[in-house]
Amino acid sequence: MAEKPKLHYPNGRGRMESVRWVLAAVGVEFDEEFLETREQLQKLQNGNHLLFQQVPMVEIDGMKLVQTRCILHYIAEKHHLFGKDLKEKTLIDMYVEGTLDLLELIIMHPFLKPEDQQREVLTMAQKAILRYFPVFEKALREHGQKFLVGDQLSLADVILLQTILALEEKIPSILNSFPHLQEFSVKISNLPTIKRFLEPGSKKKPPPDELYVRTVYNVFMP
Amino acid sequence: MAEKPKLHYPNGRGRMESVRWVLAAVGVEFDEEFLETREQLQKLQNGNHLLFQQVPMVEIDGMKLVQTRCILHYIAEKHHLFGKDLKEKTLIDMYVEGTLDLLELIIMHPFLKPEDQQREVLTMAQKAILRYFPVFEKALREHGQKFLVGDQLSLADVILLQTILALEEKIPSILNSFPHLQEFSVKISNLPTIKRFLEPGSKKKPPPDELYVRTVYNVFMP
Repeated sequence: MAEKPKLHYPNGRGRMESVRWVLAAVGVEFDEEFLETREQLQKLQNGNHLLFQQVPMVEIDGMKLVQTRCILHYIAEKHHLFGKDLKEKTLIDMYVEGTLDLLELIIMHPFLKPEDQQREVLTMAQKAILRYFPVFEKALREHGQKFLVGDQLSLADVILLQTILALEEKIPSILNSFPHLQEFSVKISNLPTIKRFLEPGSKKKPPPDELYVRTVYNVFMP
Repeated sequence: MAEKPKLHYPNGRGRMESVRWVLAAVGVEFDEEFLETREQLQKLQNGNHLLFQQVPMVEIDGMKLVQTRCILHYIAEKHHLFGKDLKEKTLIDMYVEGTLDLLELIIMHPFLKPEDQQREVLTMAQKAILRYFPVFEKALREHGQKFLVGDQLSLADVILLQTILALEEKIPSILNSFPHLQEFSVKISNLPTIKRFLEPGSKKKPPPDELYVRTVYNVFMP
Protein backbone atom coordinates (compact mmCIF):
# COMPACT_ATOMS: atom_id res chain seq x y z
CA MET A 1 0.00 0.00 0.00
CA ALA A 2 1.27 3.44 -0.92
CA GLU A 3 2.09 5.74 1.97
CA LYS A 4 -0.46 8.38 2.83
CA PRO A 5 0.27 11.82 1.41
CA LYS A 6 1.72 14.20 3.99
CA LEU A 7 0.73 17.85 3.92
CA HIS A 8 3.08 20.55 5.22
CA TYR A 9 1.37 23.80 6.15
CA PRO A 10 0.15 25.74 9.19
CA ASN A 11 -2.92 24.38 10.97
CA GLY A 12 -5.43 26.46 9.03
CA ARG A 13 -7.03 26.82 5.65
CA GLY A 14 -4.90 29.16 3.58
CA ARG A 15 -3.65 27.78 0.30
CA MET A 16 -3.69 24.19 1.56
CA GLU A 17 -7.42 23.90 2.19
CA SER A 18 -8.19 23.20 -1.49
CA VAL A 19 -5.74 20.32 -1.39
CA ARG A 20 -7.46 18.90 1.70
CA TRP A 21 -10.83 19.22 -0.06
CA VAL A 22 -9.67 17.45 -3.20
CA LEU A 23 -7.94 14.61 -1.36
CA ALA A 24 -11.05 14.15 0.77
CA ALA A 25 -13.27 14.21 -2.33
CA VAL A 26 -11.34 11.37 -3.94
CA GLY A 27 -11.31 9.43 -0.67
CA VAL A 28 -7.56 9.60 -0.04
CA GLU A 29 -6.52 9.75 3.61
CA PHE A 30 -3.63 12.03 4.45
CA ASP A 31 -1.38 13.09 7.31
CA GLU A 32 -0.50 16.63 8.24
CA GLU A 33 2.64 18.21 9.61
CA PHE A 34 1.67 21.61 10.97
CA LEU A 35 4.14 24.46 10.73
CA GLU A 36 4.03 26.56 13.87
CA THR A 37 7.37 28.35 13.87
CA ARG A 38 9.75 30.02 11.47
CA GLU A 39 12.38 27.44 12.47
CA GLN A 40 10.23 24.59 11.21
CA LEU A 41 9.87 26.32 7.85
CA GLN A 42 13.61 26.99 7.72
CA LYS A 43 14.31 23.36 8.47
CA LEU A 44 12.25 22.33 5.43
CA GLN A 45 13.97 25.01 3.33
CA ASN A 46 17.47 24.09 4.44
CA GLY A 47 16.84 20.42 3.83
CA ASN A 48 15.90 21.18 0.22
CA HIS A 49 12.40 19.88 0.74
CA LEU A 50 10.73 22.95 -0.82
CA LEU A 51 11.48 23.50 -4.50
CA PHE A 52 10.87 27.26 -4.32
CA GLN A 53 11.29 27.58 -0.53
CA GLN A 54 7.54 27.83 -0.06
CA VAL A 55 4.64 25.81 1.27
CA PRO A 56 2.07 24.34 0.58
CA MET A 57 4.16 21.22 0.12
CA VAL A 58 2.71 17.74 -0.20
CA GLU A 59 4.71 14.54 -0.05
CA ILE A 60 2.93 12.16 -2.36
CA ASP A 61 3.96 9.16 -4.47
CA GLY A 62 7.65 9.79 -3.79
CA MET A 63 7.49 13.44 -4.85
CA LYS A 64 7.54 16.63 -2.87
CA LEU A 65 4.97 18.73 -4.70
CA VAL A 66 4.74 22.48 -4.31
CA GLN A 67 2.60 25.24 -5.85
CA THR A 68 -1.09 24.87 -4.98
CA ARG A 69 -2.29 24.55 -8.57
CA CYS A 70 0.30 21.95 -9.37
CA ILE A 71 -0.70 19.85 -6.36
CA LEU A 72 -4.37 20.11 -7.33
CA HIS A 73 -3.62 19.20 -10.95
CA TYR A 74 -1.63 16.14 -9.95
CA ILE A 75 -4.38 14.79 -7.71
CA ALA A 76 -7.00 15.63 -10.36
CA GLU A 77 -5.04 13.83 -13.10
CA LYS A 78 -4.44 10.80 -10.96
CA HIS A 79 -8.00 10.50 -9.70
CA HIS A 80 -9.89 11.37 -12.89
CA LEU A 81 -11.20 14.78 -11.86
CA PHE A 82 -10.39 16.35 -15.24
CA GLY A 83 -13.28 15.10 -17.40
CA LYS A 84 -13.24 12.66 -20.27
CA ASP A 85 -11.29 14.55 -22.95
CA LEU A 86 -9.18 17.66 -23.60
CA LYS A 87 -12.26 19.78 -24.27
CA GLU A 88 -13.84 18.91 -20.91
CA LYS A 89 -10.49 19.27 -19.23
CA THR A 90 -10.03 22.76 -20.62
CA LEU A 91 -13.47 23.82 -19.44
CA ILE A 92 -12.75 22.39 -16.00
CA ASP A 93 -9.40 24.22 -15.96
CA MET A 94 -11.12 27.54 -16.83
CA TYR A 95 -13.76 27.06 -14.13
CA VAL A 96 -11.07 26.17 -11.60
CA GLU A 97 -8.89 29.16 -12.49
CA GLY A 98 -11.84 31.56 -12.20
CA THR A 99 -12.92 30.06 -8.89
CA LEU A 100 -9.37 30.20 -7.53
CA ASP A 101 -9.28 33.94 -8.36
CA LEU A 102 -12.36 34.37 -6.19
CA LEU A 103 -11.05 32.05 -3.49
CA GLU A 104 -7.81 34.05 -3.35
CA LEU A 105 -9.79 37.04 -2.05
CA ILE A 106 -11.16 34.86 0.73
CA ILE A 107 -7.72 33.46 1.58
CA MET A 108 -6.17 36.92 1.87
CA HIS A 109 -9.08 38.46 3.77
CA PRO A 110 -7.95 37.73 7.37
CA PHE A 111 -4.62 39.43 6.65
CA LEU A 112 -6.16 42.76 5.64
CA LYS A 113 -6.20 45.68 8.04
CA PRO A 114 -9.37 45.48 10.19
CA GLU A 115 -10.67 48.72 8.63
CA ASP A 116 -10.41 47.20 5.13
CA GLN A 117 -12.02 43.85 5.93
CA GLN A 118 -15.67 44.92 5.79
CA ARG A 119 -15.25 46.71 2.47
CA GLU A 120 -13.47 43.69 1.04
CA VAL A 121 -16.42 41.45 1.96
CA LEU A 122 -18.53 43.67 -0.29
CA THR A 123 -15.99 43.38 -3.10
CA MET A 124 -16.03 39.60 -2.78
CA ALA A 125 -19.82 39.50 -2.78
CA GLN A 126 -19.93 41.69 -5.88
CA LYS A 127 -17.37 39.61 -7.76
CA ALA A 128 -19.09 36.38 -6.80
CA ILE A 129 -22.55 37.63 -7.73
CA LEU A 130 -21.69 39.58 -10.88
CA ARG A 131 -18.72 37.78 -12.39
CA TYR A 132 -18.39 34.18 -11.25
CA PHE A 133 -21.67 32.69 -10.01
CA PRO A 134 -23.72 33.64 -13.10
CA VAL A 135 -21.32 31.55 -15.21
CA PHE A 136 -21.75 28.48 -13.04
CA GLU A 137 -25.52 29.01 -12.62
CA LYS A 138 -25.87 29.14 -16.40
CA ALA A 139 -23.66 26.08 -16.91
CA LEU A 140 -25.73 24.04 -14.46
CA ARG A 141 -29.04 25.28 -15.88
CA GLU A 142 -28.18 24.56 -19.52
CA HIS A 143 -26.39 21.36 -18.85
CA GLY A 144 -28.98 19.90 -16.50
CA GLN A 145 -26.54 17.64 -14.71
CA LYS A 146 -25.47 17.40 -11.10
CA PHE A 147 -21.91 18.37 -12.04
CA LEU A 148 -20.45 21.47 -13.69
CA VAL A 149 -18.85 19.57 -16.57
CA GLY A 150 -19.91 16.25 -18.06
CA ASP A 151 -21.50 13.58 -15.91
CA GLN A 152 -18.86 13.07 -13.28
CA LEU A 153 -17.25 14.90 -10.38
CA SER A 154 -14.40 17.18 -11.42
CA LEU A 155 -11.87 19.47 -9.80
CA ALA A 156 -14.18 22.36 -10.72
CA ASP A 157 -17.04 21.01 -8.59
CA VAL A 158 -14.84 20.53 -5.56
CA ILE A 159 -13.17 23.94 -5.66
CA LEU A 160 -16.48 25.68 -6.36
CA LEU A 161 -18.20 24.00 -3.40
CA GLN A 162 -15.26 24.91 -1.15
CA THR A 163 -15.53 28.52 -2.31
CA ILE A 164 -19.32 28.70 -1.94
CA LEU A 165 -19.22 27.36 1.62
CA ALA A 166 -16.40 29.72 2.61
CA LEU A 167 -18.32 32.67 1.16
CA GLU A 168 -21.54 31.62 2.88
CA GLU A 169 -19.75 31.81 6.23
CA LYS A 170 -19.26 35.53 5.57
CA ILE A 171 -22.37 36.25 3.48
CA PRO A 172 -25.10 33.68 4.27
CA SER A 173 -27.38 34.97 1.50
CA ILE A 174 -24.75 34.78 -1.25
CA LEU A 175 -26.64 32.10 -3.24
CA ASN A 176 -30.07 33.73 -2.91
CA SER A 177 -30.51 34.44 -6.60
CA PHE A 178 -28.79 31.27 -7.82
CA PRO A 179 -31.23 28.33 -7.47
CA HIS A 180 -29.11 25.92 -9.51
CA LEU A 181 -26.06 26.69 -7.42
CA GLN A 182 -28.11 26.08 -4.26
CA GLU A 183 -29.10 22.67 -5.58
CA PHE A 184 -25.52 21.99 -6.72
CA SER A 185 -24.23 22.91 -3.28
CA VAL A 186 -26.62 20.47 -1.57
CA LYS A 187 -25.98 17.64 -4.01
CA ILE A 188 -22.20 17.85 -4.02
CA SER A 189 -22.16 18.24 -0.24
CA ASN A 190 -24.01 14.94 -0.04
CA LEU A 191 -21.55 12.88 -2.05
CA PRO A 192 -20.34 10.34 0.53
CA THR A 193 -16.67 11.38 0.58
CA ILE A 194 -17.50 15.07 0.78
CA LYS A 195 -20.26 14.53 3.32
CA ARG A 196 -17.71 12.89 5.59
CA PHE A 197 -15.31 15.81 5.10
CA LEU A 198 -18.05 18.25 6.12
CA GLU A 199 -18.79 16.39 9.34
CA PRO A 200 -17.15 17.24 12.67
CA GLY A 201 -13.85 15.49 13.28
CA SER A 202 -12.65 15.63 9.66
CA LYS A 203 -9.47 17.37 8.56
CA LYS A 204 -11.40 20.35 7.21
CA LYS A 205 -10.14 23.44 8.95
CA PRO A 206 -12.30 26.03 10.72
CA PRO A 207 -12.54 29.63 9.51
CA PRO A 208 -9.32 31.57 10.14
CA ASP A 209 -9.13 33.07 13.63
CA GLU A 210 -6.59 35.26 15.42
CA LEU A 211 -4.41 32.32 16.36
CA TYR A 212 -4.16 31.24 12.72
CA VAL A 213 -3.30 34.75 11.57
CA ARG A 214 -0.63 35.04 14.29
CA THR A 215 0.81 31.66 13.34
CA VAL A 216 1.06 32.66 9.68
CA TYR A 217 2.90 35.84 10.63
CA ASN A 218 5.22 33.88 12.90
CA VAL A 219 6.04 31.28 10.28
CA PHE A 220 6.29 33.37 7.12
CA MET A 221 7.22 36.92 8.02
CA PRO A 222 10.96 37.57 8.14
CA MET B 1 -7.17 23.77 -42.43
CA ALA B 2 -8.17 24.97 -38.99
CA GLU B 3 -8.55 28.70 -38.58
CA LYS B 4 -5.69 30.55 -36.98
CA PRO B 5 -6.12 31.27 -33.28
CA LYS B 6 -7.15 34.85 -32.60
CA LEU B 7 -5.78 36.64 -29.54
CA HIS B 8 -7.75 39.41 -27.84
CA TYR B 9 -5.64 41.74 -25.70
CA PRO B 10 -4.04 45.19 -25.81
CA ASN B 11 -1.04 45.64 -28.08
CA GLY B 12 1.57 44.86 -25.45
CA ARG B 13 2.99 42.03 -23.40
CA GLY B 14 1.00 41.77 -20.19
CA ARG B 15 -0.58 38.41 -19.50
CA MET B 16 -0.86 37.56 -23.20
CA GLU B 17 2.86 37.53 -24.00
CA SER B 18 3.34 33.99 -22.65
CA VAL B 19 0.58 32.79 -24.98
CA ARG B 20 2.34 34.45 -27.95
CA TRP B 21 5.60 32.78 -26.91
CA VAL B 22 4.07 29.33 -26.64
CA LEU B 23 2.17 29.53 -29.92
CA ALA B 24 5.33 30.74 -31.64
CA ALA B 25 7.37 27.94 -30.05
CA VAL B 26 5.04 25.28 -31.45
CA GLY B 27 5.00 26.99 -34.84
CA VAL B 28 1.34 28.02 -34.82
CA GLU B 29 0.54 31.27 -36.60
CA PHE B 30 -2.04 33.51 -34.99
CA ASP B 31 -3.99 36.72 -35.49
CA GLU B 32 -4.43 39.48 -32.97
CA GLU B 33 -7.29 41.82 -32.21
CA PHE B 34 -5.88 44.65 -30.14
CA LEU B 35 -8.04 46.23 -27.46
CA GLU B 36 -7.52 49.97 -27.40
CA THR B 37 -10.64 51.30 -25.71
CA ARG B 38 -12.97 50.43 -22.88
CA GLU B 39 -15.79 50.18 -25.42
CA GLN B 40 -14.03 47.36 -27.26
CA LEU B 41 -13.70 45.42 -24.01
CA GLN B 42 -17.34 46.07 -23.16
CA LYS B 43 -18.39 44.84 -26.57
CA LEU B 44 -16.65 41.53 -25.90
CA GLN B 45 -18.18 41.39 -22.42
CA ASN B 46 -21.69 42.20 -23.60
CA GLY B 47 -21.47 39.66 -26.40
CA ASN B 48 -20.69 36.93 -23.84
CA HIS B 49 -17.32 36.29 -25.42
CA LEU B 50 -15.43 36.44 -22.11
CA LEU B 51 -16.33 33.73 -19.63
CA PHE B 52 -15.32 35.81 -16.60
CA GLN B 53 -15.47 39.21 -18.35
CA GLN B 54 -11.70 39.34 -18.62
CA VAL B 55 -8.96 39.06 -21.21
CA PRO B 56 -6.61 37.43 -22.21
CA MET B 57 -9.04 35.61 -24.45
CA VAL B 58 -8.01 33.33 -27.28
CA GLU B 59 -10.33 31.97 -29.94
CA ILE B 60 -8.95 28.57 -30.79
CA ASP B 61 -10.42 25.32 -32.11
CA GLY B 62 -13.97 26.62 -31.75
CA MET B 63 -13.49 27.64 -28.12
CA LYS B 64 -13.07 31.03 -26.48
CA LEU B 65 -10.40 30.33 -23.91
CA VAL B 66 -9.75 32.64 -20.98
CA GLN B 67 -7.42 32.57 -17.96
CA THR B 68 -3.75 32.70 -18.94
CA ARG B 69 -2.81 29.40 -17.35
CA CYS B 70 -5.71 27.61 -18.95
CA ILE B 71 -4.76 28.90 -22.39
CA LEU B 72 -1.15 27.84 -21.86
CA HIS B 73 -2.20 24.41 -20.62
CA TYR B 74 -4.44 23.82 -23.63
CA ILE B 75 -1.72 24.68 -26.14
CA ALA B 76 0.80 22.63 -24.17
CA GLU B 77 -1.48 19.58 -24.07
CA LYS B 78 -2.28 19.83 -27.73
CA HIS B 79 1.29 20.34 -28.88
CA HIS B 80 3.07 17.92 -26.54
CA LEU B 81 4.80 20.47 -24.29
CA PHE B 82 3.96 18.56 -21.11
CA GLY B 83 6.57 15.78 -21.17
CA LYS B 84 6.12 12.06 -21.64
CA ASP B 85 4.20 11.04 -18.51
CA LEU B 86 2.42 12.36 -15.42
CA LYS B 87 5.67 12.60 -13.47
CA GLU B 88 7.34 14.79 -16.10
CA LYS B 89 4.14 16.77 -16.51
CA THR B 90 3.97 17.48 -12.80
CA LEU B 91 7.58 18.67 -12.75
CA ILE B 92 6.92 20.88 -15.78
CA ASP B 93 3.80 22.25 -14.06
CA MET B 94 5.80 23.08 -10.90
CA TYR B 95 8.52 24.82 -12.90
CA VAL B 96 5.92 26.77 -14.87
CA GLU B 97 4.03 27.84 -11.74
CA GLY B 98 7.22 29.03 -10.07
CA THR B 99 8.33 30.91 -13.17
CA LEU B 100 4.90 32.51 -13.56
CA ASP B 101 5.16 33.81 -9.99
CA LEU B 102 8.41 35.53 -10.97
CA LEU B 103 7.01 36.71 -14.31
CA GLU B 104 4.02 38.24 -12.50
CA LEU B 105 6.38 40.71 -10.81
CA ILE B 106 7.68 41.74 -14.24
CA ILE B 107 4.16 42.08 -15.66
CA MET B 108 3.01 44.32 -12.81
CA HIS B 109 6.18 46.43 -12.74
CA PRO B 110 5.17 49.17 -15.23
CA PHE B 111 2.01 49.85 -13.20
CA LEU B 112 3.86 50.60 -9.96
CA LYS B 113 4.35 54.16 -8.81
CA PRO B 114 7.59 55.51 -10.32
CA GLU B 115 9.16 55.80 -6.86
CA ASP B 116 8.52 52.09 -6.21
CA GLN B 117 9.81 50.79 -9.53
CA GLN B 118 13.52 50.86 -8.78
CA ARG B 119 13.10 49.07 -5.46
CA GLU B 120 10.92 46.46 -7.13
CA VAL B 121 13.67 45.71 -9.66
CA LEU B 122 15.86 44.78 -6.70
CA THR B 123 13.13 42.54 -5.29
CA MET B 124 12.80 40.80 -8.64
CA ALA B 125 16.53 40.33 -8.94
CA GLN B 126 16.70 38.89 -5.44
CA LYS B 127 13.84 36.48 -6.01
CA ALA B 128 15.25 35.37 -9.35
CA ILE B 129 18.77 34.88 -8.00
CA LEU B 130 17.93 33.38 -4.61
CA ARG B 131 14.71 31.47 -5.14
CA TYR B 132 14.06 30.53 -8.76
CA PHE B 133 17.21 30.44 -10.87
CA PRO B 134 19.17 28.12 -8.52
CA VAL B 135 16.44 25.51 -8.99
CA PHE B 136 16.68 25.64 -12.77
CA GLU B 137 20.48 25.87 -12.78
CA LYS B 138 20.64 22.72 -10.65
CA ALA B 139 18.08 20.91 -12.81
CA LEU B 140 20.07 21.65 -15.97
CA ARG B 141 23.39 20.77 -14.35
CA GLU B 142 22.26 17.43 -12.94
CA HIS B 143 20.17 16.46 -15.88
CA GLY B 144 22.75 17.35 -18.55
CA GLN B 145 20.17 17.95 -21.27
CA LYS B 146 19.30 20.96 -23.34
CA PHE B 147 15.81 21.08 -21.82
CA LEU B 148 14.59 21.49 -18.24
CA VAL B 149 12.64 18.23 -18.17
CA GLY B 150 13.25 15.10 -20.23
CA ASP B 151 14.68 15.31 -23.72
CA GLN B 152 12.14 17.55 -25.43
CA LEU B 153 10.92 21.12 -25.35
CA SER B 154 8.27 21.77 -22.71
CA LEU B 155 6.10 24.63 -21.52
CA ALA B 156 8.64 25.14 -18.72
CA ASP B 157 11.46 25.90 -21.19
CA VAL B 158 9.40 28.43 -23.09
CA ILE B 159 8.11 30.34 -20.07
CA LEU B 160 11.53 30.30 -18.43
CA LEU B 161 13.24 31.72 -21.53
CA GLN B 162 10.56 34.41 -21.81
CA THR B 163 11.14 35.33 -18.17
CA ILE B 164 14.93 35.33 -18.44
CA LEU B 165 14.91 37.62 -21.48
CA ALA B 166 12.42 40.02 -19.87
CA LEU B 167 14.56 40.15 -16.73
CA GLU B 168 17.75 40.69 -18.72
CA GLU B 169 16.19 43.79 -20.26
CA LYS B 170 16.08 45.28 -16.76
CA ILE B 171 19.10 43.58 -15.21
CA PRO B 172 21.59 42.57 -17.94
CA SER B 173 23.83 40.68 -15.49
CA ILE B 174 21.02 38.57 -14.03
CA LEU B 175 22.49 35.26 -15.30
CA ASN B 176 26.10 36.04 -14.32
CA SER B 177 26.40 33.28 -11.76
CA PHE B 178 24.28 30.75 -13.66
CA PRO B 179 26.40 29.22 -16.44
CA HIS B 180 23.93 26.46 -17.26
CA LEU B 181 21.09 28.94 -17.57
CA GLN B 182 23.25 31.04 -19.90
CA GLU B 183 23.80 28.02 -22.09
CA PHE B 184 20.11 27.08 -21.86
CA SER B 185 19.13 30.59 -22.87
CA VAL B 186 21.32 30.47 -25.99
CA LYS B 187 20.25 26.97 -27.00
CA ILE B 188 16.51 27.49 -26.59
CA SER B 189 16.76 30.89 -28.32
CA ASN B 190 18.25 29.09 -31.30
CA LEU B 191 15.46 26.57 -31.80
CA PRO B 192 14.15 27.52 -35.25
CA THR B 193 10.62 28.51 -34.19
CA ILE B 194 11.83 30.54 -31.24
CA LYS B 195 14.68 32.09 -33.23
CA ARG B 196 12.11 33.43 -35.68
CA PHE B 197 10.01 34.81 -32.83
CA LEU B 198 13.05 36.67 -31.49
CA GLU B 199 13.79 38.30 -34.83
CA PRO B 200 12.44 41.72 -35.82
CA GLY B 201 8.99 41.67 -37.43
CA SER B 202 7.61 38.82 -35.29
CA LYS B 203 4.56 39.19 -33.05
CA LYS B 204 6.74 39.41 -29.93
CA LYS B 205 5.91 42.65 -28.18
CA PRO B 206 8.44 45.28 -27.10
CA PRO B 207 9.00 46.17 -23.43
CA PRO B 208 6.05 48.08 -21.96
CA ASP B 209 6.24 51.82 -22.58
CA GLU B 210 4.06 54.77 -21.56
CA LEU B 211 1.64 54.23 -24.40
CA TYR B 212 1.06 50.62 -23.34
CA VAL B 213 0.52 51.62 -19.72
CA ARG B 214 -1.94 54.34 -20.78
CA THR B 215 -3.80 51.90 -23.03
CA VAL B 216 -4.15 49.40 -20.20
CA TYR B 217 -5.58 52.09 -17.93
CA ASN B 218 -7.96 53.20 -20.68
CA VAL B 219 -9.21 49.70 -21.39
CA PHE B 220 -9.41 48.20 -17.93
CA MET B 221 -9.93 50.94 -15.36
CA PRO B 222 -13.57 51.81 -14.70
